[in-house]
Amino acid sequence: SYIGFNEWESLIPLMITSFFSFIITLRLIPIIKKTTRAAGLYGKDLNKNNPKEIPEALGIVPATAYLVTLILTQLFYASDKNSQVQYNSAAFSVCFMIFLGFADDVLNLRWRYKLLLPTIASFPLIVAYSGTTLIIVPEPLRIYLGKAIELGILYKIYMMMLAVFCTNAINIYAGVNGIEAGQSLVIASAALTHNFIEIFLHISDDIYKQHLISVSLLLPFLMSTLALLKYNKYPSKVFVGDTYCYFAGMTFAMAGILGHYSKTMLLFFIPQILNFLISVPQIFGFFECPRHRLPHYNAKEDILEPVTKHHTLINLILWIIGPTHERELVNILIILQIVSCGLAFYIRYHVSSLFY
Amino acid sequence: SYIGFNEWESLIPLMITSFFSFIITLRLIPIIKKTTRAAGLYGKDLNKNNPKEIPEALGIVPATAYLVTLILTQLFYASDKNSQVQYNSAAFSVCFMIFLGFADDVLNLRWRYKLLLPTIASFPLIVAYSGTTLIIVPEPLRIYLGKAIELGILYKIYMMMLAVFCTNAINIYAGVNGIEAGQSLVIASAALTHNFIEIFLHISDDIYKQHLISVSLLLPFLMSTLALLKYNKYPSKVFVGDTYCYFAGMTFAMAGILGHYSKTMLLFFIPQILNFLISVPQIFGFFECPRHRLPHYNAKEDILEPVTKHHTLINLILWIIGPTHERELVNILIILQIVSCGLAFYIRYHVSSLFY
Ligand SMILES: [Mg+2]
Ligand SMILES: [Mg+2]
Repeated sequence: SYIGFNEWESLIPLMITSFFSFIITLRLIPIIKKTTRAAGLYGKDLNKNNPKEIPEALGIVPATAYLVTLILTQLFYASDKNSQVQYNSAAFSVCFMIFLGFADDVLNLRWRYKLLLPTIASFPLIVAYSGTTLIIVPEPLRIYLGKAIELGILYKIYMMMLAVFCTNAINIYAGVNGIEAGQSLVIASAALTHNFIEIFLHISDDIYKQHLISVSLLLPFLMSTLALLKYNKYPSKVFVGDTYCYFAGMTFAMAGILGHYSKTMLLFFIPQILNFLISVPQIFGFFECPRHRLPHYNAKEDILEPVTKHHTLINLILWIIGPTHERELVNILIILQIVSCGLAFYIRYHVSSLFY
Repeated sequence: SYIGFNEWESLIPLMITSFFSFIITLRLIPIIKKTTRAAGLYGKDLNKNNPKEIPEALGIVPATAYLVTLILTQLFYASDKNSQVQYNSAAFSVCFMIFLGFADDVLNLRWRYKLLLPTIASFPLIVAYSGTTLIIVPEPLRIYLGKAIELGILYKIYMMMLAVFCTNAINIYAGVNGIEAGQSLVIASAALTHNFIEIFLHISDDIYKQHLISVSLLLPFLMSTLALLKYNKYPSKVFVGDTYCYFAGMTFAMAGILGHYSKTMLLFFIPQILNFLISVPQIFGFFECPRHRLPHYNAKEDILEPVTKHHTLINLILWIIGPTHERELVNILIILQIVSCGLAFYIRYHVSSLFY
């Protein structure tokens, strides 16, 4: 067994701890933002007239609230050794990522560390992954590959790459007010919806329990993100930092892995995958890669214009829709994320049923 | 069973990972010290003529090396669910403390967080503590209390207080070059000696295995501390920061708890306990408490003099032995730590046998 959930009412402690992570984040950000500002952690908001100095790395507040909540949640739900392993390894992985994210905010780590360290941080999670490494082959390919393939170590490498991808994908789909927390809120909501569908369907006890674990990892995340978004949405009063992006990415990776729905989780990352594919030629140095790849701010008209030399999804969208005000652009990006998640559900529940 | 150790040769992977933490720390400190300096993390060395700006918070290097080592060690030794719970909860607790320590270095947290957060960080460890909460009563008290008392929740509160004490005790016994890493090196060596004595005695399989767990937690710590000390010893080229002090304190607390020898561990903290008792009236505000409670630096003669208004063990020792050069003072403090650990062994193996 995985977790001490039996009935719906057993979710009450989780709701209380999640609410706690919301309140703590809401209350502490106004206090801690003065501290981060005083410590020299701030950034200029380049897409504004008269750019102000905005306190940076405020992701440490929801991240710390989340870790505390995870500890408290564990007291209620980790009733046996197996669930304790899953909780603690997941908590260790996400805590290590949060620490590295904050170190990145303070020290500006190099790219090699950004790839190496999430790989290592995902180890405890992958060691604790107790599921099968067998994958079911889609119908049309079965004549070539058979009904299932044992991936073994390859599957573990896939999970590590998932952790590295998730942590970096959110970090590079950034640059306009509220996009980091906004995209994460939509992904978390979609994943929770998927979890609740599977809990409702109750196809098997194992699947039921795996999705309940995922709920216990994502609900406090959603609530702390909601509180963060209050301060991070346009016009941003705080910036979230690498801390938040790494925190969010690792949380999604571990929910997908421990919930055994990593492929569905990847479907919720369609805009991030697109952004990654568009960015790849620059990140790997085929084109010159400037440090910031923001759109151009037209201060006179207070709008953002595409920069074709900056290969990101945001610039591509601006190129398609034309110069746009930042607030409107963020809304469009969030709607795109929601539509992508809708498409993901269509693929997961309709298209995939044609192949399996 | 706790851990996959059976024979002495099974310690070889641990020795390799510990050596790895030594090498990584040794190699990375000269690189990362430039990064922390560039990020504005530095302090003036007040006990020197022409004080230089010394890179601060370099504890992040041995701490990160240690966490990576712990993950790698787990791959070799955590063969069953029980040992995985112990490893991951310990790793989560220490990782959370390292994150908070680094946050403290960057943000200068308030005292209430310094007491609250280690308490919460110790939760996973205490949940995972699978031992008895029964304590054996010393002979002379048995007529009043009986042979053993079931402490239950009180014992868990004691373990939390141990975590809070260890993390803060090392942090406040500081202020001269190399004392943080130096005292930790001596304590770790003493604890490892105790572990090896108990492993050799092999009184019961449980005790044997508990001390082997402790070895696997302390050996990589000792090795990364050794590399840190190369740069931190008088005259310091780097400062260790709250990061290192919290990291060291939590490592000792978890080794003592998971090794089931927390009372013996406390005996190795005699100078820290003395310093804590001397400091208590100032810390809790009965006397005015200045932010730094250093000795007075006599620049003309390049010696340290006691400041009677600063209630610390270091000032008390200076008051007893008279003004002393910093290098000599640190050597005296380290010798005091070694002598105290010798006394601890005498109490543990001789005096306590009179009472139990
Ligand atoms: Mg950065
Ligand atoms: Mg501090």
